Amino acid sequence: MGELARAASRTLAATSTQTKSVALRAIADAVDASRESIKAANGKDMSAAQAKGLEQPLVDRLLLDDKGVDRMIEGILQVDALQDPVGEVTDLRFQPSGIQVGKMRVPLGVIAMIYESRPNVTVDVASLCIKSANACILRGGSEAFESNQAIGQCVSAGLVAAGLPETCVQLLQTTDRDAVGELLRLDKYIDVIVPRGGKGLIERIINESKIPVIKHLDGICHVFVDSDADLEMAANVAFNSKVEKYAVCNALETLLLHKEVAGTVLPSLAQRFHQAGVALRGCDISRTFADMEPAVEQDWYEEYLGPILAIKVVDDLDTAIAHINHYGSQHTDTIVTSNYEHAQRFITQVDSASVLVNTSTQFADGFEYGLGAEVGVSTDKLHARGPVGLQGLTTQKYVVYGNGEIRHR
Amino acid sequence: MGELARAASRTLAATSTQTKSVALRAIADAVDASRESIKAANGKDMSAAQAKGLEQPLVDRLLLDDKGVDRMIEGILQVDALQDPVGEVTDLRFQPSGIQVGKMRVPLGVIAMIYESRPNVTVDVASLCIKSANACILRGGSEAFESNQAIGQCVSAGLVAAGLPETCVQLLQTTDRDAVGELLRLDKYIDVIVPRGGKGLIERIINESKIPVIKHLDGICHVFVDSDADLEMAANVAFNSKVEKYAVCNALETLLLHKEVAGTVLPSLAQRFHQAGVALRGCDISRTFADMEPAVEQDWYEEYLGPILAIKVVDDLDTAIAHINHYGSQHTDTIVTSNYEHAQRFITQVDSASVLVNTSTQFADGFEYGLGAEVGVSTDKLHARGPVGLQGLTTQKYVVYGNGEIRHR
Repeated sequence: MGELARAASRTLAATSTQTKSVALRAIADAVDASRESIKAANGKDMSAAQAKGLEQPLVDRLLLDDKGVDRMIEGILQVDALQDPVGEVTDLRFQPSGIQVGKMRVPLGVIAMIYESRPNVTVDVASLCIKSANACILRGGSEAFESNQAIGQCVSAGLVAAGLPETCVQLLQTTDRDAVGELLRLDKYIDVIVPRGGKGLIERIINESKIPVIKHLDGICHVFVDSDADLEMAANVAFNSKVEKYAVCNALETLLLHKEVAGTVLPSLAQRFHQAGVALRGCDISRTFADMEPAVEQDWYEEYLGPILAIKVVDDLDTAIAHINHYGSQHTDTIVTSNYEHAQRFITQVDSASVLVNTSTQFADGFEYGLGAEVGVSTDKLHARGPVGLQGLTTQKYVVYGNGEIRHR
Repeated sequence: MGELARAASRTLAATSTQTKSVALRAIADAVDASRESIKAANGKDMSAAQAKGLEQPLVDRLLLDDKGVDRMIEGILQVDALQDPVGEVTDLRFQPSGIQVGKMRVPLGVIAMIYESRPNVTVDVASLCIKSANACILRGGSEAFESNQAIGQCVSAGLVAAGLPETCVQLLQTTDRDAVGELLRLDKYIDVIVPRGGKGLIERIINESKIPVIKHLDGICHVFVDSDADLEMAANVAFNSKVEKYAVCNALETLLLHKEVAGTVLPSLAQRFHQAGVALRGCDISRTFADMEPAVEQDWYEEYLGPILAIKVVDDLDTAIAHINHYGSQHTDTIVTSNYEHAQRFITQVDSASVLVNTSTQFADGFEYGLGAEVGVSTDKLHARGPVGLQGLTTQKYVVYGNGEIRHR
C-alpha cells in the first residue's frame, strides 16, 4: 500500500487542476448514484453498533441519511470550487549571482489519516487530498467499516473516470488494530499522519511512529473581559463561546474577568449560564458576585468539553495574558475590549493558534476562517497551526531558474 | 534553563524591532571590543585540539583569527539589516460572518541548537534567534568550548545593553554528553531542535526526544543533461556542481546524461574531471565514451562528499526524473535543457527541496537564495524545506478581529 501510494502521489503531483476537477465531480456523481447502497451499508453499521451497545452520541455520529449524503456531495463540490494551491510560485526574485529564486507550493506526497466514527470524513479527506495532489491512506473507525467501504468504492470510481489510479485513495480493508501498527511503520512511504480522534490515539502514534504528525491536542480556550469593554458584547461573546456547542475544541473553558468589571458583569451573566444549565466554578472573588462552586487549581487546566465553566477575576491585562499562556493549551483565546493598545498587546502576546478580539471562540474553524474545509485543527507550532485546510496539506520547494550561472566562492 | 528560556521568549516576542536592533549592534560592538579575549579563548581550544590530535579539517574549522572575528561582526550586522519577519499579517479578509481573519507571523518560542566545531555558529544563530524573537539554548562542540563561552559573554553583554534578559540566549556551560540528553527531555520548554552535525547526532535526537526537529540529512544531488541542451553550459554546470566544493551537501553526486548527448559530452567532460582529480564511476554505456570505473547499484545511493562522481546514461527525461526521485535524497537537483516543456516537467515532478534549471547545484544555500543567513538546510517536507533562514524560525497564528459577532450553527 505504501509503495502504491507513493507511486500514485507522483502521478497526482503531475495532474492538472482540470483532471482533478473531473475526478472530484465524478466522485460526487458516484456518491449520488450509489445513495441506496451507501445507506444500506450504513444500516449494517448502525445495527452492529446498536447490537454492540455503542454510546448514543457515537451512534448518532455514525448515521448517514439522505441529508447526510447530500452534505457529502456538497462538501466534494465545495472542495472542487476552491483554488488549486499546487504550483503557485511566490517570491520569485533575481539574486546577485543572476539566478532567479522562488518558492513553489507542492503536495506533501502521501498522507495517512486515522479517524473514528463519522463516515463522511472519508470523502471529505479524499477530496481535500485529491485537490492538493496528495495520495492518501485512510483508516476509518471499525464501527463505520461498511459505510466507509461503500463510500470508498465511489471514490475509486471517480478516480478511474478521470483516468487517475485508484491507489490515489486507499482504504485499509480491515478493522484489525494491528493494521494501524503496520501503517505507523511506513515512514519511508508516508509523509505525514493526521489523526482525528482521542488523545490516546495521538499518543500511540507519537510513541510508535517516526512519521511526522499534525497533532490536535487540548482546546482550553479563554475569554478575557477587559476593564474597558462593551459589557453587553462581553456577556454575549462569553455566553456564545461556551454554550453554542459544548463538546468542541473551540468552546470556552475559562472565563477571565478584569476586577473592575467583574462585579457588573457576573451577577446577570452567571444567571444566564445557570439557566442554560452550565455549572460554574469560580475563584474566591468571583464567588462574592454570584453563586458558584469554588474552583481549585486543577480547574484552570481543565478542558471540560461540557456544561461546566471556570471563572477567575484577574487584576489586569498582563495577569490575564500570563494566565492564558500558563494554563491554556495555545488553541483559541479571545479578548473583549474597547482599548486599542490592549487589543494589540493581547494579539501579540497570547501565544495561541487563534487569537481573537471581540468575537466568539466558536468561530475558530476552517469553514468560518474561509479555508473551505479542514482536515483538522493543529495545536502544533511547526508547519500548520490552527485549522488545517488545503494549504496545510502542501509544502513549498525552492525553484531556481538560471542561464548557465556557476558558483565561485 | 528551559523555564528561563520560555520566560525570555515571552519578553522577546513583545520586543520592538528597534530594541532587537540595539541588542544586535551592541553584540557586534562587544565582539569587536573583546577581540583579544575571544582569540585568547580560541587559542586554548586550538592547543587542546592539537594536543588531542584532532583531525586537521576540524582544527581548521575551529580557528578564529581577526578575519574570522570580522566575519562574525559582519554576519550580525547583516542579520540586523534583514526585514523583521515578526508581526507581519497576511491574507486579512472579512468572512461572511463579519469577522476579519488573517495570519500573523510570530516566533516559534524556544529553539535549541546543537552543533559542532565552528564557534562562529554561536553568534550566527544567536543573531537569527534574537531577530526572529526566539529565545535559544545553544550547545556547541566540546572542542570549541572556550571560544563559545567568550562569544557567549559578548552576546549577554549586548542583550543587557538593550535591556533584554540575558536568558534570551543561553549556552550550555558544560561539555558533558549527558547534558544533551537532559536538553532532549525538555519538550515542555523547547519548541524545536536544530541539529547541525552528523547523522548520528540527528538520529540520537529523533530517537531520544519528542521535540520536533528541523532535520538535515543527505544531499545526494543530481545534474541531468537533457538531449536538447546547450552542451557547453551543461559541462560547465556539471563541473561546477561537483568541484566548486566537495564536502558540502549541495555538491553533485550523480550525473545523468541523455543517451543522445552522452557521446558528445562525456569524452571531454570526463577528461576535465580527471584533471581535477575526480574519480568517475560509470554505468556500462558511460564507460563506452570515457575511461572510468564501473558503477554498482550502491553508487546511485551514495553521498560521496568527496572527489568521486557517479555517471549514468538515461533514455529520456522521464527515466531521469524517476532515477532522481528513487535514488536521490530530495535535496537539490538540476536539469540543463533548452526545452521549455522539459524544464517545466522537471520542476514539477522532481520531488526535492530545491529544483534548478540551467544552473549549479552549489547555489542551494540561504545566502545565495537571498535569505541573508541560514541556521541549516532542511530535508524535511513539513514546516521548512531547503535553506532555513529567519522565516523558518517563525510560524503563523490566526488573528481574528470582530465587533461582537457570535456564532449560530
